Amino acid sequence: MISVDEALKIVLDSVRPLESEAVGLRDCYGRVLSEDVYSECDIPASDYSAMDGYALRYSDTKGASSSSPVHLKVIGEIRAGGEFDGRLVDGQAVKIMTGAPIPDGADAVIMVEYTRAEGDRVAILQEVGYGENIRRAGEDVKKGSLVIKRGTRLGPAHAGMLSAVGRPRVNVTRRPRVAIIITGDEVIGPDEELKKGKVRNANIYSLSGQVMSAGAIPVDMGIARDDLDDLKTKIKEALAHDVIITSGGVSMGEYDLVRDVLGEFGFQQLFWKVAMRPGKPNLFGIVDNKPVFGLPGNPVSCMIGFEVFVRPAILRMLGQETNDVMEVDAYLEEDIKKKKGLRFFIRAQTRWVDGRYVTRTTGPQGSGILSSMALANSLMILPEGEEFIRKGTTVRVRLL
Amino acid sequence: MISVDEALKIVLDSVRPLESEAVGLRDCYGRVLSEDVYSECDIPASDYSAMDGYALRYSDTKGASSSSPVHLKVIGEIRAGGEFDGRLVDGQAVKIMTGAPIPDGADAVIMVEYTRAEGDRVAILQEVGYGENIRRAGEDVKKGSLVIKRGTRLGPAHAGMLSAVGRPRVNVTRRPRVAIIITGDEVIGPDEELKKGKVRNANIYSLSGQVMSAGAIPVDMGIARDDLDDLKTKIKEALAHDVIITSGGVSMGEYDLVRDVLGEFGFQQLFWKVAMRPGKPNLFGIVDNKPVFGLPGNPVSCMIGFEVFVRPAILRMLGQETNDVMEVDAYLEEDIKKKKGLRFFIRAQTRWVDGRYVTRTTGPQGSGILSSMALANSLMILPEGEEFIRKGTTVRVRLL
Repeated sequence: MISVDEALKIVLDSVRPLESEAVGLRDCYGRVLSEDVYSECDIPASDYSAMDGYALRYSDTKGASSSSPVHLKVIGEIRAGGEFDGRLVDGQAVKIMTGAPIPDGADAVIMVEYTRAEGDRVAILQEVGYGENIRRAGEDVKKGSLVIKRGTRLGPAHAGMLSAVGRPRVNVTRRPRVAIIITGDEVIGPDEELKKGKVRNANIYSLSGQVMSAGAIPVDMGIARDDLDDLKTKIKEALAHDVIITSGGVSMGEYDLVRDVLGEFGFQQLFWKVAMRPGKPNLFGIVDNKPVFGLPGNPVSCMIGFEVFVRPAILRMLGQETNDVMEVDAYLEEDIKKKKGLRFFIRAQTRWVDGRYVTRTTGPQGSGILSSMALANSLMILPEGEEFIRKGTTVRVRLL
Repeated sequence: MISVDEALKIVLDSVRPLESEAVGLRDCYGRVLSEDVYSECDIPASDYSAMDGYALRYSDTKGASSSSPVHLKVIGEIRAGGEFDGRLVDGQAVKIMTGAPIPDGADAVIMVEYTRAEGDRVAILQEVGYGENIRRAGEDVKKGSLVIKRGTRLGPAHAGMLSAVGRPRVNVTRRPRVAIIITGDEVIGPDEELKKGKVRNANIYSLSGQVMSAGAIPVDMGIARDDLDDLKTKIKEALAHDVIITSGGVSMGEYDLVRDVLGEFGFQQLFWKVAMRPGKPNLFGIVDNKPVFGLPGNPVSCMIGFEVFVRPAILRMLGQETNDVMEVDAYLEEDIKKKKGLRFFIRAQTRWVDGRYVTRTTGPQGSGILSSMALANSLMILPEGEEFIRKGTTVRVRLL
């Protein structure tokens, strides 16, 4: 039995980023950038007005006030998206709208509130300083500068940024296709009648959701019965994908066939039992250079096994550099007993109250008790060395 | 000019949850449940074994040890998903696999590790207690109990739970369709040549991503030129949807036509300017009972306006009860000057360091500076009353 940390290291050492593909901006959300993006232009592209008002030469406004206005000749008008031909000289102004480019010769903009239009002239009622109300070319982004780093998971602001710098398509890592095989004679679908000893298939729905939330594509291979041939067929099909997950069939029972069948495909087992609860039986190894995760069949153990081992593997396959797992410390609101030597993952409700996180369990923590997971917004991570953790202790919590 | 809090109240009072629709479990992720879900069965459905071993009567194991084993007759075998006809009596055992239903008459399971198979008999090497290694029917969920509340945003664990309780379809709130109109003669697409005074359309991509992340459907109405007829046509089309967002055209310039055109459709304006930065011009009102948000054209102001007003409106339209906005307190790592009377939303990088959140700005905070947003994982929310906030102050932060 190896530790969680050793096991995770083995998993991460076994996978590497997939190849790239180009996507348009409408399809970039949630994808991981596989190139450094440099700006192909200054942003803004040219100096522009931050206000509605008049572009002018600041030296012309010296001494201007509402009691003693300066009068300038209005030689034109320019709106956002418009252009002004010609050059402004002393004694002249150009009416200008927010976002419009600054005309040649002008070195300041006065807000419309501090002016009075008088036919083809404008009265300036206040002084302005050099450069006032002008946004400079390249103020946000300089041409050639690095704007988004490789390994970034792209969100709304990145999509906007990519458009702004002139990149209608970008290179992202291909999303791993994750084949999911649920095993067990006892498993039935959610629409089937629940007879004694049967259990409805929760894991395909929880795992599919987890796979998608990690940025990968779930592929449902169906339920494999506890039968060599059925499992063999399904695993053979699954090996066409990038990652293989099985659920169930990895403990020590005589009908736990997953390891036997994997062996026929040249499975290189890297670990089987991990010092954790829930989810001690967590099989991991390689077939055809592809990672194979044999997760437990218990719904909670299965979800935890995914969070601890599969999600980090998928993120590495996506080349994601920034970790989207957020771990914080929290005040424990109750006593917890655990088994020494195992790392415990406790389903928890964690809230920010009076300047700190407080956390408590979501009720009974049995590995079959899915309601504990459905109510959780976080996992307490309780270290191997502890046996009894008192209320009031500071514990580590992973926010989900 | 009204306060952020007053404006938000007006927005929330103007919208209500949309109607329901039924979806299958494969399509339920990220949707908001519009019914209380009660379990249609006990989970587990019947008592079952938590271990591989032998089902027996606990009283038969009294005094058993490895030096003085008790011998029981093995009268059958039962695996997960299997059945056992008949009833076990004193002196008998049934071989049992994890997940298999407990045979009638048995009241405990002994782990296989504490037994030794001897032909048609089994040697019991240890005592077991009453009920040991048996999971009880209804231990996780009792038939008829409330398992997921209306208003819950469904994630992987909920999907698993819905399957487990026999709900292959559930009722969720219909997702709002959000029409987005970008306005301005200066706006061009990401693949167009960037001439002086032009700006590439960042807002359609950032807004579309924000709309999706809130759980709604963005509908791109294209770019409306600063022209009455063009804008009128686009707004008319937009009114076929549930929410209308415009970006740009809401400040005081002569070519800011949005309010004029909305007026022709019976627009009831509820606010226009909000005491905040960035994003003071934030128009809001109602046309045909539909919320219309006139967001600023500056890329950052536009994104902030969405976060502050549109996202909460969408969540209410979805009937989401649990707020997915997480606000915490953080140690401010730098001095910040702000304008008194306005609530500031500062783009920030916030990290958990040594038991607390620390936060700093993502660089220059101009409303056109999209890079400040692309680098942010959070927003500092600085209150109206403050003018200068010193390094070391505790400030409120919204994690994005």
